[in-house]
Amino acid sequence: MSAPMAAPVLPVRGRLRPLGLDDVRITGGFWAERQSINATATLAHIEHWLERTGWLRNFDLAARGDLPGGRRGREFSDSEIYKFLEALAWEIGRTADAELESSFRGIVRRVAAAQEPDGYLNTKFGRPGQAPRWSDLEWGHELYCVGHLIQAAVARARTRPGAADGLLQVACRAADNVCATFGPDGIDGVCGHPVIETALVELARTTGEDRYLTQAALFVERRGHGRLSDVEFGREYFQDERPVREATVLRGHAVRANYLAAGAVDVAVELKDAGLLEAVRNQWSNTVASRTYVTGGQGSRHQDEAFGEDWVLPPDRAYSETCASVGSVMFAWRLLLADGDPRYADLIERTLYNVVSTSPSVDGRSFFYTNTLHRRELGTLPDADRPSLRAASSLRAPWFEVSCCPTNVARTLASLATYVATCDDEGLQLQQYMPATVEHRLADGREVSVTIATGYPHDGEIRVRIDSDDERPWSLSLRVPAWADNGATVTIDGDRRPVGPGLVTERRTWRRGDEIVLSLPVAPRFTFPDERIDAVRGCVAVERGPLVLAVESVDVPGVETVDELRVDVGEPPRLVDGRVTIRCHRVHPPDHEWPYQPDRDGSAPVVGEVFDVVPLVEYHAWANRGPSTMRVWLPAVTDHTDQD
Amino acid sequence: MSAPMAAPVLPVRGRLRPLGLDDVRITGGFWAERQSINATATLAHIEHWLERTGWLRNFDLAARGDLPGGRRGREFSDSEIYKFLEALAWEIGRTADAELESSFRGIVRRVAAAQEPDGYLNTKFGRPGQAPRWSDLEWGHELYCVGHLIQAAVARARTRPGAADGLLQVACRAADNVCATFGPDGIDGVCGHPVIETALVELARTTGEDRYLTQAALFVERRGHGRLSDVEFGREYFQDERPVREATVLRGHAVRANYLAAGAVDVAVELKDAGLLEAVRNQWSNTVASRTYVTGGQGSRHQDEAFGEDWVLPPDRAYSETCASVGSVMFAWRLLLADGDPRYADLIERTLYNVVSTSPSVDGRSFFYTNTLHRRELGTLPDADRPSLRAASSLRAPWFEVSCCPTNVARTLASLATYVATCDDEGLQLQQYMPATVEHRLADGREVSVTIATGYPHDGEIRVRIDSDDERPWSLSLRVPAWADNGATVTIDGDRRPVGPGLVTERRTWRRGDEIVLSLPVAPRFTFPDERIDAVRGCVAVERGPLVLAVESVDVPGVETVDELRVDVGEPPRLVDGRVTIRCHRVHPPDHEWPYQPDRDGSAPVVGEVFDVVPLVEYHAWANRGPSTMRVWLPAVTDHTDQD
Repeated sequence: MSAPMAAPVLPVRGRLRPLGLDDVRITGGFWAERQSINATATLAHIEHWLERTGWLRNFDLAARGDLPGGRRGREFSDSEIYKFLEALAWEIGRTADAELESSFRGIVRRVAAAQEPDGYLNTKFGRPGQAPRWSDLEWGHELYCVGHLIQAAVARARTRPGAADGLLQVACRAADNVCATFGPDGIDGVCGHPVIETALVELARTTGEDRYLTQAALFVERRGHGRLSDVEFGREYFQDERPVREATVLRGHAVRANYLAAGAVDVAVELKDAGLLEAVRNQWSNTVASRTYVTGGQGSRHQDEAFGEDWVLPPDRAYSETCASVGSVMFAWRLLLADGDPRYADLIERTLYNVVSTSPSVDGRSFFYTNTLHRRELGTLPDADRPSLRAASSLRAPWFEVSCCPTNVARTLASLATYVATCDDEGLQLQQYMPATVEHRLADGREVSVTIATGYPHDGEIRVRIDSDDERPWSLSLRVPAWADNGATVTIDGDRRPVGPGLVTERRTWRRGDEIVLSLPVAPRFTFPDERIDAVRGCVAVERGPLVLAVESVDVPGVETVDELRVDVGEPPRLVDGRVTIRCHRVHPPDHEWPYQPDRDGSAPVVGEVFDVVPLVEYHAWANRGPSTMRVWLPAVTDHTDQD
Repeated sequence: MSAPMAAPVLPVRGRLRPLGLDDVRITGGFWAERQSINATATLAHIEHWLERTGWLRNFDLAARGDLPGGRRGREFSDSEIYKFLEALAWEIGRTADAELESSFRGIVRRVAAAQEPDGYLNTKFGRPGQAPRWSDLEWGHELYCVGHLIQAAVARARTRPGAADGLLQVACRAADNVCATFGPDGIDGVCGHPVIETALVELARTTGEDRYLTQAALFVERRGHGRLSDVEFGREYFQDERPVREATVLRGHAVRANYLAAGAVDVAVELKDAGLLEAVRNQWSNTVASRTYVTGGQGSRHQDEAFGEDWVLPPDRAYSETCASVGSVMFAWRLLLADGDPRYADLIERTLYNVVSTSPSVDGRSFFYTNTLHRRELGTLPDADRPSLRAASSLRAPWFEVSCCPTNVARTLASLATYVATCDDEGLQLQQYMPATVEHRLADGREVSVTIATGYPHDGEIRVRIDSDDERPWSLSLRVPAWADNGATVTIDGDRRPVGPGLVTERRTWRRGDEIVLSLPVAPRFTFPDERIDAVRGCVAVERGPLVLAVESVDVPGVETVDELRVDVGEPPRLVDGRVTIRCHRVHPPDHEWPYQPDRDGSAPVVGEVFDVVPLVEYHAWANRGPSTMRVWLPAVTDHTDQD
């Protein structure tokens, strides 16, 4: 039996198959830099905070029988340790770093020591003086924690199969406890926060044990019938107001919604449940069409970290939680494997560049929890020396009371190579572009390999060199993103031809040294919102390839806040000294005692001086230069304004 | 000594003086109807729920020594009983209803029985098994509850001076306990929820005891120095991040902010503290200029029930809590008395018509807690038989887990007559227009009286007839609202002259039967927002006199939701069969998989059929005809849209 693929998702069937960490190596560029910072700074930063906050020590207290006294952290803090373990597992799989391996084993030992004889593992529930096990399915996060434990174990099993650390055994015992407790004859409940579903399917795929899949399917089917209490935010918050297969769009808490949808794809694929798959596919399409920010971010509300209704996408305090985007990548990736539609990879690209990579600071030691698209006032720097209370912070914080995002980013970056390419019986599909090598054994046993060389996303030229020789033809497919609908070309053997969005497939007998060059039009461009998005009516954004740009006040010394700027959309964005720039007017607002006036002229600002060259910042890079104001969506100068 | 004025606010000095319930009677029209519903339906409805929820019974349990077991309701539930008592006091003052008097006395007995020997009175704290007194100043609401107790007692003392019910004595003992506990040598703290400040000042005014004023001033000065903990929402939530006299705008929790500001005016006026008065006056101006909805509503955020930054006034899920508007009326009224500026009365009028009167349903038995300006989806009817969990409900609910708004509306409506007119040494000022009689003894002892006859706000003609005869001249002033800046006239003795916004004063020797007719231009009109309010860029509202109007889907059978409508602003709103109507286009949105497109035309909707006569609903009356979608701000058809 061959080694398992070192990838987070290994469906038994689907239009496409994933590649693993052993197949794809990111060798440079935007993402290699982020992987390096993740490895050298972020992982140690996380471990420091897990110790400092006592969240890791909770396991020691549990093992010593000292709980509940001294337990620290929220009810879900165990999950951060598991997500950290998952990040370590992928990173060790990527680099075989001995120090990380030692950290990993040490933490696993502490976790394993806290497991109870029947497999139950949670530091918050079930002991004398604690709430009973499973007594708070709405908010207790016990199944959620088990889910992340399983994901860590699966990552380890796929990157270090047969390792003697015992994590897979711990996870299986915990999963067995879940199956025994929540099986058909057990507690008829679901977890307030999904993730156990997708985790159990992956555990079934890893162990070959169908009972985990059965339990996952049971959880998916149970949800949506009001088994959870009607909380302040409504059952929609938990996606428990409507069965998964009857829903038409993601709603409620955006992380929960995406995790659940990912699990539903997993169950549908394994059980060949076409109806369930169609339901979540439809939910994805509707969510992307009317409930997703231009950054790919999802979830607009602070109060319940939830999606709003269709078209409710205010840039102001856009919640756009980092973890919701991690969940969105998980969901879209599973659909991509199931269906092969490049639109899923389009969203993954957009989300990785504009949310996942936005969260960590340039030094990898502080993080956005939420990712607003409009910052009106200068923020105050979060305290670097204590967990931040507020997710709303305009500046990245080192840690949070609810610190789900740093570990989620870390596990995603460490496993990022697995999202670069897929394969099918015909050949390879390149889904994301970055300097990388891709090697893979096709289903018929042939080894194929390519090298990607590119300065993408700043340079649109992507050179793919074939490194393998073969007598028989195979197919190499390249994704042309939807935004590249004007001017993309493919060149092979000097033959250049225009291509449109979607998968461009070239099937031939490839020889070592053959080259295919995809050229994508990455000139900066204006982007106009659907007019139904009330909050950005009359505004434009600027994009460059997959990157969303923003105006940040530190780049415009002549204004008090970026809110004074109005864009001249008659003048396309252009590159000046390597930076994207736009032409703006500064407006001088009317000075009214009451901001609602009977004539339009009375409400319009006076257009003042022109700023011919306003430099933009890539959205992922904003807020790295101190407090600032920022806008992604910029009001356009209107004819009306001009006349004043 | 003369009887006290039956009014909620009796400053020792100020540009204007209030009139009392004995001076002003509302005799018909919009507000008389609401007062009648309040008296005949709402008060009994509230009493029913106070009993049913057990919040009133908590006092019985306290008196019997049975607490904490069986206590029900949130930590601030005592305050609802007090606000109900205040509403009863004003209503009894207005109508001398014997049944209400009996209810009032019965409840006062139950409250008084729960008071502890040292004056402390709260059902949630201080007993064995409860948290200690004053142990949770951030969230415990103990001082807040005392504040509302005092306000009830003050209302009673001014409407039934010397009544033997004992409420004033209960309140004084509670206030004395507060002074003893929080005085200069006591706990150096403030309450997380202001109201004690304004209450203590009014108690000082009622009793002549300066110590209550001193304590109120101490609370005002203490706030803003971080005495309260840094909670998730920040100290701004409590207005504790910045001293009152250093703040430039209202911020944080909108009810707290307005109550505190009202108390600061009271303290400033009593202590002749010009600096403090100037600070809150400036806060009011800035708040009205950039943080107030067109309805007068304040506070845009659900998460912390708080103001957003300047210009953050999204109609979507506008929070605009009913109680924040009650607080805004309290604040503006105090400034009006202090300064005399009619702008304060303008805001009071707007807020009363468009928020306070919006909250209760037509039958007075259900209430909006929040007052959104845009409802996108049909809501579901709240359960009429249990408290609603969700403030966000699109339909009025009979009661809430946090049910501050019904009692706040009730006390405001019962005392509404006191906001109709003011006086100074020269004469009377009519501040609000409704059928009413106003009688008052001027400072020099002369009795003057007028009768107001009007169909306002639907009819702009306001006839003021003089009912008193006097040999010497006195001044009668009429407020011309700021929105009436084009076409208002005053007619006296057949002499008609144009007048502009502000106070129009006519000083003469008035004779019985003299008449002054103010004519206000109440033709419906478009209103355009300041362009900095991003969320309504490109939109218009429709107003008629002081009334804000809205489109409600039940009036437009041809559309699925009101979001399909675009207003033709070239066609002014007009009256058709007594209803305000506008001309709209229905748009057919583009069908994109991704709502952000590279060309503007690709994002614009196709303009479809014309609706020549779209009837509008007065905003206060919306959601009385079942689930509906609704918009106050309507996107205008743009030239750009037209060209498609």
